[in-house]
Amino acid sequence: MSQAEAVPPVGAPGTQFLAEIHEQPAALRRLLEHEETVARAAALAIERNARLIRLVGHGSSDNAASFGVYAFGLLPRWTAMRDAITLTVHYDTPLDMTGSTVIGLSQSGRTPDVVEYVARARAAGALTIAVTNEAGSELGTTAEIAIPLAAEPELAVAATKTYVNTLAVLALLAGHLADRGDEVSTGIRRASEQLEEVLPALERSAAGMALPFAYTGRMFVIGRGVEFATAREIALKLLETCRIAAEPLTATDLAHGPVAALDPLFPVWAIASPDATLAPVQEAAARVRAMGATLVASGTAASELGAAAYVLPVPSPAPQLLSPLLSVVPGQLFAWALSRARGLDADAPHGLAKVTLAR
Amino acid sequence: MSQAEAVPPVGAPGTQFLAEIHEQPAALRRLLEHEETVARAAALAIERNARLIRLVGHGSSDNAASFGVYAFGLLPRWTAMRDAITLTVHYDTPLDMTGSTVIGLSQSGRTPDVVEYVARARAAGALTIAVTNEAGSELGTTAEIAIPLAAEPELAVAATKTYVNTLAVLALLAGHLADRGDEVSTGIRRASEQLEEVLPALERSAAGMALPFAYTGRMFVIGRGVEFATAREIALKLLETCRIAAEPLTATDLAHGPVAALDPLFPVWAIASPDATLAPVQEAAARVRAMGATLVASGTAASELGAAAYVLPVPSPAPQLLSPLLSVVPGQLFAWALSRARGLDADAPHGLAKVTLAR
Repeated sequence: MSQAEAVPPVGAPGTQFLAEIHEQPAALRRLLEHEETVARAAALAIERNARLIRLVGHGSSDNAASFGVYAFGLLPRWTAMRDAITLTVHYDTPLDMTGSTVIGLSQSGRTPDVVEYVARARAAGALTIAVTNEAGSELGTTAEIAIPLAAEPELAVAATKTYVNTLAVLALLAGHLADRGDEVSTGIRRASEQLEEVLPALERSAAGMALPFAYTGRMFVIGRGVEFATAREIALKLLETCRIAAEPLTATDLAHGPVAALDPLFPVWAIASPDATLAPVQEAAARVRAMGATLVASGTAASELGAAAYVLPVPSPAPQLLSPLLSVVPGQLFAWALSRARGLDADAPHGLAKVTLAR
Repeated sequence: MSQAEAVPPVGAPGTQFLAEIHEQPAALRRLLEHEETVARAAALAIERNARLIRLVGHGSSDNAASFGVYAFGLLPRWTAMRDAITLTVHYDTPLDMTGSTVIGLSQSGRTPDVVEYVARARAAGALTIAVTNEAGSELGTTAEIAIPLAAEPELAVAATKTYVNTLAVLALLAGHLADRGDEVSTGIRRASEQLEEVLPALERSAAGMALPFAYTGRMFVIGRGVEFATAREIALKLLETCRIAAEPLTATDLAHGPVAALDPLFPVWAIASPDATLAPVQEAAARVRAMGATLVASGTAASELGAAAYVLPVPSPAPQLLSPLLSVVPGQLFAWALSRARGLDADAPHGLAKVTLAR
C-alpha cells in the first residue's frame, strides 16, 4: 500500500478511527494540563489511608484497569484489583469499603452499573474517583473527584485516545501516590513525542500486514504483566472492528489449555517487554511456533521473540511502566488497516453504539 | 446417538475425560470428608483477621477463582480478588500481605509461579492456604494449611472433577467464614445427588448437539456473577478439547464491543441464573439473536432465555451460590461429544501435558 493510500479521504470507512489514533500524542499532552486534579486525588487517598484500589469499568475501560493493577502495585506498592461490579450492584452485597479508593472508568460517564457501583461505594465509605471524558456526566458528579480524560470528543465507536489517556491517568495517579509524579508526567510527555515520531512508520507497517490476514477468523493476543492490558485492548479492537474472534491471554495461561487450539490458520500476536516477563513470553512464542501458527511480535522487546513472521516494535519509554501507552498503537493501526481490507467500517461497527447502556 | 454408543469402549478417544465427568458426584462427597480441614482454615483466617482474600491459579484453577470472588463476597462478605501473580513473582514487588488470606490453587500442586507466589506471600505475613489434589506437593507443603481436593487421580488433560471440587472447597471455606458451614456442606451433598440424577439425560442431550457444531470455529460463552466462572471453564474446555476459539465474556462485556463480531456461524453459549443477573443475560441473548447467531442456553434458568436453539437446564441447588457445581457439566459433556465428532482426543489434546510447568 502506498503512502498516498494510507490516509483515506474524509468519510471513507475508518477515517474517524484513524484520525483519532493520530490524535493520541496531542491528547496525552492535553491530559497533563490536569495533573493538579490527579495530584489532589492522590493526596486525598493518602490522607484517608484508602490503600485498597478498586477499579471498575467495561470494555476498553476494564482493559485499562488491568494496567492499573500494575501501576498501583509497582509505584506506591498498593494493592489494586478489578472489582466485581455484579457483587455490589446486582447481588446487592454490602461490603465494607472504608480503606478503599474506588476508581470508576467510563469514557461517556454513563455506563449504568459503573455509576451505580460508585454511588454505593461512596455511601459505604470509599474514596471515589471518576475517570471520564465527560466530567459533567452522571459518573463525574457521583464520584467525589472527577479526573477528566481531556481527550476531546471521541467519535469512532472503537476507543483509542480515551483508552490511552485512561492508562496515563492511572500511571500519573500511581506516580503521585508514590511521590514520583514528576517522573511519570515527564515520561508521559516524552512518550507522546515518541509516539508522534513513530506513528507514520507504524502505520505503513500495519497497512502492509493487512492483506495476509484478510481471511483470519481467530487469533490469540498474548502479553503478561503491564502488557496484559495491551493484549486485552488489541484483542477487543480486532473483535469489534475486524470481526475476528481474538482472545487475550497471559503468556502462561496460553500454555494451560488454549495452545491446543492453534494451527497455521490461527495466528498469535505477542507483546514483549524487556523485563522479567520476557522469558515466559518467549516460552509461549516457542509453543506457538511448535503448533505451526503464525506469530506477530510487538512491544518494546518485539525483536527478542525470534522467528516472528511480522515484527512491530515500539520505542521504550521511561519509566518502562508506560510502555502500554505505545505498544497498543500497532494493534490499533493493524485493526484499522485490516478492517478496511475486509470491507468493514471501523468507525461504526454493525451492532454497536458509542455509548453502551447495557446493564 | 443411542444410549449404547454414549459410553465408548475403554481406550477410545475421550474415554478418560467422560469417565471423570461421571466421577464428579462421588468426588464431591469424598471432599466433604475433609470438612474439618476447611473449618480449621476458616478459623485461622478469622483469628488473624485476614479478611482480604487473594486467589492465585492458572487455567481451570483461575476459573474457579472467579467463583471464589462471589463465594467470599456473598457469604462472609469479605473482599476476594484474583491477584496478579506477575506483580509479586516476576516484578519482585514486595506488597504488605498482613491482613490477607492467600489461596493457592493447583491440581498438581506444581505450578511454578503459584508455588513461588505462595512462598513470598507467607514470608510477607499472609495466611496461606493450598487447595490441591496433591497435598504432599510443593504447593501443599509451602502453604501453612493444605486442603486436599480429594478428587483422586485426574488423568484426562482437561480438568473436570478437580475443577468442580475446587469450587466446592471455596464455597465450603466461605460458608465456614460466615458460620454457615453446615448449610453449604448439606448443599454440596445434595448437589452431588442432583448431578448424579441428571447426568445420563445431560449426556444424551449434549451428544445430540455435537453434530451441528462439527465445523464451528468460534464461540462466545457468556455468564455473569457466580456463573462467569462457568463461562470461563466451558470456554476453556472447548478450546482445549475441540480447538474452538471460545472466549468467555460477561453478559455486559459482550455488549461493549465483541457483539459486533457475531454472525450465523459464530454461536453463543449463555448461562442463565434465576437472580438479578438474569436481566443482563436476557438482554445479551437478545443482542445475540439480533446478530443472527445461534444461541445455546444452559444454567438453572436456561428456559428463561427464550428463542434458544438448544436448551440444557440443570437443577437448582441450595444455596443458589452452588449452581456452578452443576451448570458446568453440560459444557463438559458437550466438549466431550463434540471432540469425538471432530475426531479429536479429549484425553490428550495435542500440545498439552497434564502438569503445566510454564512460568
